[in-house]
Amino acid sequence: MYNFTFYTPTKIHFGKDQISHLAELKESGSKALLVYGGGSIKRSGLYDKVMEILGEAGVAVVELPGVEPNPRIETVRKGAEMCKNEGIDMILAVGGGSTIDASKVIAGAACYDGDAWDLVEDPSKVKAALPLYTVLTLSATGSEMDAVAVISDMSRNLKQATESEYFLPKMSVLDPSYTCSVSARQTSSGTADMMSHVMENYFSAVEGAEIQEQFAEGILRTCVKYGPVALAEPDNYEARANLMWAASHAINGLCGCGISPGWGMHAMEHELSAFYDITHGEGLAILTPVWMEYVLGGKAASAPAGSELHEKVVAKFARYGRNVFGLDPLKEQADEEVAKMAIECLRKFFFETMHIPANMRVVGIEDEENFEIMAQKASGGGARWFVPLTKEDVVEIFRAAK
Amino acid sequence: MYNFTFYTPTKIHFGKDQISHLAELKESGSKALLVYGGGSIKRSGLYDKVMEILGEAGVAVVELPGVEPNPRIETVRKGAEMCKNEGIDMILAVGGGSTIDASKVIAGAACYDGDAWDLVEDPSKVKAALPLYTVLTLSATGSEMDAVAVISDMSRNLKQATESEYFLPKMSVLDPSYTCSVSARQTSSGTADMMSHVMENYFSAVEGAEIQEQFAEGILRTCVKYGPVALAEPDNYEARANLMWAASHAINGLCGCGISPGWGMHAMEHELSAFYDITHGEGLAILTPVWMEYVLGGKAASAPAGSELHEKVVAKFARYGRNVFGLDPLKEQADEEVAKMAIECLRKFFFETMHIPANMRVVGIEDEENFEIMAQKASGGGARWFVPLTKEDVVEIFRAAK
Repeated sequence: MYNFTFYTPTKIHFGKDQISHLAELKESGSKALLVYGGGSIKRSGLYDKVMEILGEAGVAVVELPGVEPNPRIETVRKGAEMCKNEGIDMILAVGGGSTIDASKVIAGAACYDGDAWDLVEDPSKVKAALPLYTVLTLSATGSEMDAVAVISDMSRNLKQATESEYFLPKMSVLDPSYTCSVSARQTSSGTADMMSHVMENYFSAVEGAEIQEQFAEGILRTCVKYGPVALAEPDNYEARANLMWAASHAINGLCGCGISPGWGMHAMEHELSAFYDITHGEGLAILTPVWMEYVLGGKAASAPAGSELHEKVVAKFARYGRNVFGLDPLKEQADEEVAKMAIECLRKFFFETMHIPANMRVVGIEDEENFEIMAQKASGGGARWFVPLTKEDVVEIFRAAK
Repeated sequence: MYNFTFYTPTKIHFGKDQISHLAELKESGSKALLVYGGGSIKRSGLYDKVMEILGEAGVAVVELPGVEPNPRIETVRKGAEMCKNEGIDMILAVGGGSTIDASKVIAGAACYDGDAWDLVEDPSKVKAALPLYTVLTLSATGSEMDAVAVISDMSRNLKQATESEYFLPKMSVLDPSYTCSVSARQTSSGTADMMSHVMENYFSAVEGAEIQEQFAEGILRTCVKYGPVALAEPDNYEARANLMWAASHAINGLCGCGISPGWGMHAMEHELSAFYDITHGEGLAILTPVWMEYVLGGKAASAPAGSELHEKVVAKFARYGRNVFGLDPLKEQADEEVAKMAIECLRKFFFETMHIPANMRVVGIEDEENFEIMAQKASGGGARWFVPLTKEDVVEIFRAAK
């Protein structure tokens, strides 16, 4: 286990009707920028509720609606401008990960003189940020409890993550009942997203971080248990609550501390989204089993069959199969065999149980013309990756995922 | 799952040589009260290191040594007086749970006009506190990452918990190598203490808090794995690191949020410590299997065999046996049978593997004369307890633990 710093100061108010805690915004001032997405919060009545509580608390509101999935730098720039011009004291993001991610960089850019993209390129430039509050409506990215934002500049096919302690929300309201109305597709891709966050940490060559591994396996088992329940019974509060809490812990540092993983699957998926604007969770679900098969097959240049790293891959995938999918309960099968079964279990879970598109064609990626440049950008994670991948490895994985 | 608020703002610097982060104290001012216990930090060299770093950071130090195990209100009063008289800006606790617990209430009492015991009796009176920093030297209580302090007034046989957000440490240094020198007895009782914290949350009638249950089981499995390693190889960093991180998460809210348990075992143990000044973790280890046997046997008035609550007990203990001790891997045995085996596994683990005293006599409790008054004070947890216990139940449990 490496040394680490663990810091999750966001106050979480979790449960039914916890929205009333929005009255706490007045501790940060009297004027909020309300950031939201496509308007579902108006249809659901959440918008009215928020306005009512803020009104009673004496907090004036300026609105920035229309944050896109894969949020755009243009929207961030617009929000930062509004903060500067309108004397905004704090930001309230109401929505899913995209809305919250955009709000984080708006909060930083509001306190920064240069262009907002600077803060995406170089997070060390974030020296202050407006206080950020969030109301979560979709269980997926975990942005409500972490320091990360992913922003896209589609004009340059860039989708990039940035991270700063200043981006950590001050308070987040997590009411699982808000997620009961999300579509089946969002439920599925959100579940894949949170599971991917856990697996990015869990599939690591770092040994001896047992607590983190136990937590990771616990979150994955919870997703496997409740993802299908949420699909079958969208209003099942218990399922929604467990998925919501799973998503926050999947990426708040709990599973990754002391491991410092490289997030290789995300590096690859960000290229898919940057070039084809697909749904993030679906891209991750498509790539993960393909990547697992590729590295387990000894095809990665850095981990050929028989190498020490390949042995770690086999052992880790086998542990994953046993502890997440309950394979080999009597521990009498060979690791290699269990590892292969684990990949099949994951495929079945994603593509049959959760009905996620199983390959790139289904989400509209027909050509291969961008694979070389995408692979160039996604490879090179080096020693921080569990299995370092060359550009050629990544092209092969993209092809196998078509 | 109930509604809950989750708030763990303590910044944790975890790992070897993270002590260098003490330079951050200067962010809180220029004069610190250094609180510690019996002087082991002088023998180990930690004291010199702390003084060196604070000196370089320009932070002056006033010392309060000699905090007792089961820390006394007299020490708290003395510390608060020093803070007021010396113009202290922040508190640095270097030690285990007792030192940190005392420091929390000192931090609050330094900002309070009345007597420090008021803040133990009624935590709502805590309206401010000096910033608290900690350096942990013993994995057990989790005080380094929670809002709780337990203070004793031995003159009145009182041992009482108090809790306030103001008590949350601002920053804690967790260097597992500091715990390599603790005695075998402290290692054992510390492991029992953290496991008890988890079990207090986990043994609950609240259903559907799957994430919390998974985390609880993961921590318990980690303790079962690494407790014996730490005993056999005191310098094993991996074991010390996992136990240290387990202890923090056992009580920082992660396992208990949405469950709101009653901490019945602690209520009983606090009476043992208040009347006989025994080691907290040993008292918990002695009581837990006895309590389990008592309630599984249907002897508690609130949960007779055949009642709905008793069925929950059976089911929960069986889940515990399967998921913590790996019993019944093929899931073909009856819950009742697995539950009984689970109690035996816990007994074996505590009293054979970890060499913890198995009953009250071994820790010097020979008489029963205080059992009635102790039981009177420890019973009555009501609906918040998994199995509410009458005074008579508690007396029986004390007797069976002799």
